[in-house]
Amino acid sequence: MKKLILSVDTGIDDALAIAYAAGQQEMELIGLTVSYGMSTVENTYRNTRKFAELIGLTVPVYMGSSKPMVRPGRDYRTTGSRIHGRDGMANMFGEHVPEDIEGAVPEEAIDYIIESVHRYGKDLVLVTTGPMTDLAKVIKKDPKVMEKIGAIYSMVGALAAPGNVNPYMEANAGMDPEAVKFVLESDPPLTVIGLDVTRKTLMSLEDLKRWQEIGTERSGFLSGCVEFYLDAYRVMHPYLKGCALHDPLAVGAALHPEWIHTVPMHLTCVTEGEADGRTCEDLSRCDDPVYHSAGALFVDSKAFEKHFFDTVERVLRG
Amino acid sequence: MKKLILSVDTGIDDALAIAYAAGQQEMELIGLTVSYGMSTVENTYRNTRKFAELIGLTVPVYMGSSKPMVRPGRDYRTTGSRIHGRDGMANMFGEHVPEDIEGAVPEEAIDYIIESVHRYGKDLVLVTTGPMTDLAKVIKKDPKVMEKIGAIYSMVGALAAPGNVNPYMEANAGMDPEAVKFVLESDPPLTVIGLDVTRKTLMSLEDLKRWQEIGTERSGFLSGCVEFYLDAYRVMHPYLKGCALHDPLAVGAALHPEWIHTVPMHLTCVTEGEADGRTCEDLSRCDDPVYHSAGALFVDSKAFEKHFFDTVERVLRG
Repeated sequence: MKKLILSVDTGIDDALAIAYAAGQQEMELIGLTVSYGMSTVENTYRNTRKFAELIGLTVPVYMGSSKPMVRPGRDYRTTGSRIHGRDGMANMFGEHVPEDIEGAVPEEAIDYIIESVHRYGKDLVLVTTGPMTDLAKVIKKDPKVMEKIGAIYSMVGALAAPGNVNPYMEANAGMDPEAVKFVLESDPPLTVIGLDVTRKTLMSLEDLKRWQEIGTERSGFLSGCVEFYLDAYRVMHPYLKGCALHDPLAVGAALHPEWIHTVPMHLTCVTEGEADGRTCEDLSRCDDPVYHSAGALFVDSKAFEKHFFDTVERVLRG
Repeated sequence: MKKLILSVDTGIDDALAIAYAAGQQEMELIGLTVSYGMSTVENTYRNTRKFAELIGLTVPVYMGSSKPMVRPGRDYRTTGSRIHGRDGMANMFGEHVPEDIEGAVPEEAIDYIIESVHRYGKDLVLVTTGPMTDLAKVIKKDPKVMEKIGAIYSMVGALAAPGNVNPYMEANAGMDPEAVKFVLESDPPLTVIGLDVTRKTLMSLEDLKRWQEIGTERSGFLSGCVEFYLDAYRVMHPYLKGCALHDPLAVGAALHPEWIHTVPMHLTCVTEGEADGRTCEDLSRCDDPVYHSAGALFVDSKAFEKHFFDTVERVLRG
């Protein structure tokens, strides 16, 4: 059975991805790594540990990077996420306290991923749903891991679709464009699960209502998060009839690659100018006929959504 | 046998597309329409007629639009094309003279396309390799034609790839973004053959040398054009080992859809701001599960190039 590492920056839709990864039966989830992203790494790490505990998931949780590779990180005291709340968790957890992160070693996620690749090789699948800082550090520290790993599925970028931060920039790409550029140009066996496909997935108010009616502590907590998320979506993305399942789809694509329609691509990320953060084709490699990376451009949303809701509802029932 | 109309703005790579369409045996080429684009419509029309005559192609040639739908047209007296020459034909024809365009009726291309659709229905395939002004006028004048026509293949835009005018804008899209937006949002049975795929095709100096050695009037003329084109390419697109076969690939995709890898898409064209001219997903339709348009994201370059060179070399031998 393939081994799965899920790299998150929890984050409401990361929590959905964690619940989905915890409940699925296709792969063995062996660990979670957590970077800064939706909040400080202390908060996202705490969010991940507390949420994993809540849903009965006992895999180890490793702390990753606290800021982007080159740029200064966001000042979370002044700019919380409108979509995920100040703490990254719909303001339901608040600021972390020292006990929350006891035992965490800064950036231990990097070595954990490297060691796991050497241990499991092609049987290891990595799914990332946050900034690419940790993955860039993994490749910088041990470039060979990209030949040895089975596959990587990353929720990052927007290819033929507009961004969600601005017309070019998707949020995960925008958090550390230099890391995305470095990772994509290293030509890893990585499939970009960007807004092109994630925007075609949907969690509606009806889906939320079903979760609310489950009536467990788990369902109450996750429903509260999603309610917050849907409220933000109604304002920020009025063209959608609910919220997109961005991060969960990266897990879904890893479990069932047949649900996504991919195209071989040499990709990069723009790191300057008005298109800063845009993920697009790397012109410097456009005559290289050997492709390791791919972009996902279409998705069987129905198949994915059915599996996602069936799986997560089983987890929420406990 | 399917009927083919080729809509051009000749242009050097349009001439390559015309030679290819003239020599192929998969479809019956029934007519050419010509819009402004690589030069004034009088020059592009003249270029098309003279080039068709040179290669022994006797189909009718219809004149199309002389300027974009909304924006002022380019002033060709001051801004000729660096890639195609001031006359659109490597400066080999120069400015048109009255006899060159004798018999041409302004915008008769619009009615010709409409009448052909009504006559041949699903057996008609339209390939466009220039601005979308004429096609937009066709749809505005008779919206039903988009339900009746067999298929449209258009060299236009850049989806997951950077543009060639600027990071967002491909040249055909940039000539009339309002027309591209109108056409794409009318959800036609159209496949976008953009830079994502055309940049993966190549005509090299070796290919040119082979044409030069054929030694006919035809091969001499077209080789001269391509030499001019390759010179411009070396300066403007140094990442390519020759010139891309942009317009010919739209013909190739129409003849052999199996050579291109397409993805169903709802598309639009940005018409303002810094991304003016960018072709991308239309967010307002991202939850509409019925698709009529598609984007080409990958191409079997080898299969296309072999067929293209075999076909055109046969035409050049005469």
